[in-house]
Amino acid sequence: MSMPSSAADTIRQNAKFRPPAVHQVRVGGFFGPRIETIATATAHTLLDRCIEAGMLDQVDPDRPNPGLRIPYQQGNDTVSTQMFWDSDFGKSIEAAAYGLLHKPDAALEARIDEIVDAYGRLQDENGYLNSWYQRIEPGKRWTNLRDCHELYDAGHLMEGAVAYYHVTGKRKLLDIMARYADHIATVFGPGEDQKPGYCGHPEIELALVKLGRATGEQRYLELARFFVNERGQRPDGQHYYDREARARGRDPADYHFATYEYSQSHVPVREQRHVVGHAVRAAYLYSGMADVSTEFGDDSLKPALEAIWAHLTEKNLYVTGGFGPSAHNEGLTFDYDLPNETAYAETCAAVALVFWASRMLGLGPDRAYADVMERALYNGALVGLSIDGTRFFYDNPLESRGKHHRWTWHRCPCCPPNIARLVASVGTYMYGESENEIAVHLYCEGIADLETAGTAVRIGQETIYPLDGAIRLTLEPQQPAEFTLSLRLPAWSPGVTIRVNGAPVDRAAVEQKGYARLSRLWKSGDVVELDLEMPVQQLHAHPKAGVDQGRVALQRGPLVYCLEGVDNGDDLNSLVLQPQSRFRCEPVNTLGSIPALVTTGLREVAAGESLYTERLPRREEAEIRAVPYHLWDNRAAGEMLVWIRTEGGR
Amino acid sequence: MSMPSSAADTIRQNAKFRPPAVHQVRVGGFFGPRIETIATATAHTLLDRCIEAGMLDQVDPDRPNPGLRIPYQQGNDTVSTQMFWDSDFGKSIEAAAYGLLHKPDAALEARIDEIVDAYGRLQDENGYLNSWYQRIEPGKRWTNLRDCHELYDAGHLMEGAVAYYHVTGKRKLLDIMARYADHIATVFGPGEDQKPGYCGHPEIELALVKLGRATGEQRYLELARFFVNERGQRPDGQHYYDREARARGRDPADYHFATYEYSQSHVPVREQRHVVGHAVRAAYLYSGMADVSTEFGDDSLKPALEAIWAHLTEKNLYVTGGFGPSAHNEGLTFDYDLPNETAYAETCAAVALVFWASRMLGLGPDRAYADVMERALYNGALVGLSIDGTRFFYDNPLESRGKHHRWTWHRCPCCPPNIARLVASVGTYMYGESENEIAVHLYCEGIADLETAGTAVRIGQETIYPLDGAIRLTLEPQQPAEFTLSLRLPAWSPGVTIRVNGAPVDRAAVEQKGYARLSRLWKSGDVVELDLEMPVQQLHAHPKAGVDQGRVALQRGPLVYCLEGVDNGDDLNSLVLQPQSRFRCEPVNTLGSIPALVTTGLREVAAGESLYTERLPRREEAEIRAVPYHLWDNRAAGEMLVWIRTEGGR
Repeated sequence: MSMPSSAADTIRQNAKFRPPAVHQVRVGGFFGPRIETIATATAHTLLDRCIEAGMLDQVDPDRPNPGLRIPYQQGNDTVSTQMFWDSDFGKSIEAAAYGLLHKPDAALEARIDEIVDAYGRLQDENGYLNSWYQRIEPGKRWTNLRDCHELYDAGHLMEGAVAYYHVTGKRKLLDIMARYADHIATVFGPGEDQKPGYCGHPEIELALVKLGRATGEQRYLELARFFVNERGQRPDGQHYYDREARARGRDPADYHFATYEYSQSHVPVREQRHVVGHAVRAAYLYSGMADVSTEFGDDSLKPALEAIWAHLTEKNLYVTGGFGPSAHNEGLTFDYDLPNETAYAETCAAVALVFWASRMLGLGPDRAYADVMERALYNGALVGLSIDGTRFFYDNPLESRGKHHRWTWHRCPCCPPNIARLVASVGTYMYGESENEIAVHLYCEGIADLETAGTAVRIGQETIYPLDGAIRLTLEPQQPAEFTLSLRLPAWSPGVTIRVNGAPVDRAAVEQKGYARLSRLWKSGDVVELDLEMPVQQLHAHPKAGVDQGRVALQRGPLVYCLEGVDNGDDLNSLVLQPQSRFRCEPVNTLGSIPALVTTGLREVAAGESLYTERLPRREEAEIRAVPYHLWDNRAAGEMLVWIRTEGGR
Repeated sequence: MSMPSSAADTIRQNAKFRPPAVHQVRVGGFFGPRIETIATATAHTLLDRCIEAGMLDQVDPDRPNPGLRIPYQQGNDTVSTQMFWDSDFGKSIEAAAYGLLHKPDAALEARIDEIVDAYGRLQDENGYLNSWYQRIEPGKRWTNLRDCHELYDAGHLMEGAVAYYHVTGKRKLLDIMARYADHIATVFGPGEDQKPGYCGHPEIELALVKLGRATGEQRYLELARFFVNERGQRPDGQHYYDREARARGRDPADYHFATYEYSQSHVPVREQRHVVGHAVRAAYLYSGMADVSTEFGDDSLKPALEAIWAHLTEKNLYVTGGFGPSAHNEGLTFDYDLPNETAYAETCAAVALVFWASRMLGLGPDRAYADVMERALYNGALVGLSIDGTRFFYDNPLESRGKHHRWTWHRCPCCPPNIARLVASVGTYMYGESENEIAVHLYCEGIADLETAGTAVRIGQETIYPLDGAIRLTLEPQQPAEFTLSLRLPAWSPGVTIRVNGAPVDRAAVEQKGYARLSRLWKSGDVVELDLEMPVQQLHAHPKAGVDQGRVALQRGPLVYCLEGVDNGDDLNSLVLQPQSRFRCEPVNTLGSIPALVTTGLREVAAGESLYTERLPRREEAEIRAVPYHLWDNRAAGEMLVWIRTEGGR
């Protein structure tokens, strides 16, 4: 096996890594049944609920105009017609498209085509396309970028268009959205008759990069860069949103969220160093920044991205990979503010963190990003979707007294299609391809058709990960080729063994930034075996995370665990682990193959009915049983707790 | 010493206990300096802020009508003119009147007279008096009892009038309010041309009892009883508030708080068994119910009062005596919902609990009520007032990360005059007088002029309580008389010694419901010595109070303690007590005479900057220093914590 020379290594350091397109990776194993459920249940559910809510009435110019309010058909709740409904259609099309890849479904495809046709009829001659501003509030387009999601809608429809094109080869929606993007590029830009604006809710930046990659059109990448660069500028001393508000006859000082930190437009992006504001907006923006940095080799964005990443992951990230504790701004507050029972930690924010982390890998393999990506994916994001694929968490507390359950739908239905599209396309997050390197960021049974060093390379993964850390990778380059295969060595694994064609590899000699970077002439049939030790870990939080003190979170492999009332009875805070507690794995009925973690701890029992007493609580031995956090609330309704009491120190 | 016969005891059980009027008790010791501050600082501050806010402009018909909005003069905030401003004037007059009792102040008295004169000019010929409905929203009186505080305003002005009359002998405001009460009695009642209504915010019920006692007019007690009895009735199948809403052209289903539990009018009061809704409304109502029960010997109210009391104190009371955890309804949520950092626990609610508890003592001495009264008084209520008497807590968390501080004023300024009038009249809560018994509910240096068994009885207390549990009571009956002197033996005291004229008394022989009931022929110069052991106690919360598990609250005597950052540094949740921790008392500079509790515990130190780590926290010895909860935030701004981590069980 040849070790990389330092020159070759420098090239790889600057290499541009792109994720594979969704159709390049077939995924089975852990994610297989979840994708199957999305293909067969969630995809239809999403379209059903969108259409029941009235979205097609809003989009289709052949239907009666629903006007400003229509009833929500399920349950007693009502919804307004919403300015962001195009985005929900866009994400639902995207999720459904990935489902089609997994399982052809002519009826589902016909439903998507019906929506695409409606958008085709809706589109203006000049290319403009937004159902809210064309049908509900005509005459107001581009007057309120700060609050009104207009470019965000475009972005999600672009992502849907790219996905549907990749999966079916159908260009209609792709062409519609490319035409719209071209129109947007006439409206926004540096010219005197153009607007130096950008969306209050970032999204179009990363979508334009996808559109550029799918169409091969550099101009979409350039438009993405324009939006990134313009954000937070005060070219004539005035913030764009202030100017825009005054043009609407409004006082900018009346802004509901008080600070433009809410939309990460308080200062130009290169001057930002802290994760602030609305969590989803934040991670979408940083995703776009990372894409632009990668695509243009623009290192000037890196200091901001790296500082913000550190600020998020060192001071503001839940152990589940969720972030944004506050319901008020759906986002950040202050450092170490990580309340458990009231955690907002929107599903979309964890999904967006997967997006951002994956794009931070665009500059090369680095465990700092991939480990967080995995944490958010398996925990804070995946929890958003019920096992049956039809119910959804919007906010994700880390403790519940039994009143928190998944919704069938939501007034603001952003999370259901978001978690569905992430899971159904999870294969694209598993790999990175560059000119002479393939990075494996995530492990899961499946087959990927990639390309590097001028040859197609099929990589098969055989593994029951994350049940176990043993992974067998088989390489089939179309022709023998010299390239680097980089395998992530998760920080949570205390021990790793690596073999290439049976021969052990010295970890220390090949590890860089938490990846085993294996450079050699790879031939068809080469086998790499990776074995990641996967002990149960008891994680302690930093002393400044006050509510978690005297408690531990359980983790095994990438999975964070929790206690549920259905396994442990009520009053989960009366259970106490002991420092010497050892866990065994036991299967859990009805939760699939992932085991529960079981140990013997203590239960404290009330001395009486008194609310307060001097008497020490009586303690008795008790079995304590934890299940993966992402699986909670799939059985009986009840209490839930991630941070479990413990005692002792050193 | 003669022991009570069971017949005499039965009489005493049914005896009607009334609190002494405020001028009957002079208070020094612990409360002396606080009352002095109220007399010299708070009383003027309250009137200053009321008048700066524009209250006199609203009340005085000789001033220009301020209309619906005027700016708030202090700081950048603005306030609306408020429908409840009469109540704030009423409470401020009451607090100032008690101040005058402590320290004559001609300027302060002149300011009150100016306000009284304005009310005199404002009063309608028919007796009606409400500045909001006379000047800001004329034509709407008695149309929205549910939301608009109209009778509540009347109640607080009545309380102010009674206080001012007791202290100065001036009848003007008393006569104004009696005239208004007479008018109210024409509007509300069982007659066909009368309204069967009652206020959305209880208060007038207890105020009418005070007015009846001060004037000797039974009809005010009867009006109080009418309001109590009518509450929650559906005489013609319709709730009064529903009928009233429809009369205003509104749909009752649009009620902002969704349920009439908010104002404890969901069912008739005798059917109520749970503490629900807005906390202050709740305790004011229960106060009125207890008063009516006492005054009319109406036992039919007792099952409700006793069940609600148990429900509050066994499942919904903070260890500070605060209650009502939620900001949304300023009140109750569900059992054992006692979050610390987000505790609303409004100062007014703890004040109102003192009112209620004191009225539960109307049927006779019972420690169950007096202990809670003391807990709320010394902790959840008193914390609302800064040492200098000019800043006020509205909501009272039991944990703060450093952002919670007293206000100089509040948009809804109910708490400042409420805590001021309670503290300045604390003497009335210390005693109960009945035909043949004097009960001592609270201990504090001072002199009370009481009456029982047909004779005046002066009781002097010499004590530094609550610094220490030794209390020496000297009795001076004008003539020797046989009566019972009942002394509370607080449940928090594990050991009590009682001596009468130096001779030990067997506690078991005289204790009933937590009071030592000493029946004998009392002569001038008789001395009773009470010594209450006052150890530092570590209180554990019931297992269902989840957030408090693995933690203790410190209490010594009636005082609950807390940790402050100024004494213990940041990250209070990194401090851990040990089961064997023993405390010593140490003086605290700048906090008066009450000592701090000091012990040696452990501090956990982060292994590094990681937010989450498998490494056990390193522990080092640390001094842990607790100060009385009511004194926090009087020195440097910083963190605060009541429930302190601990370990171990039995």
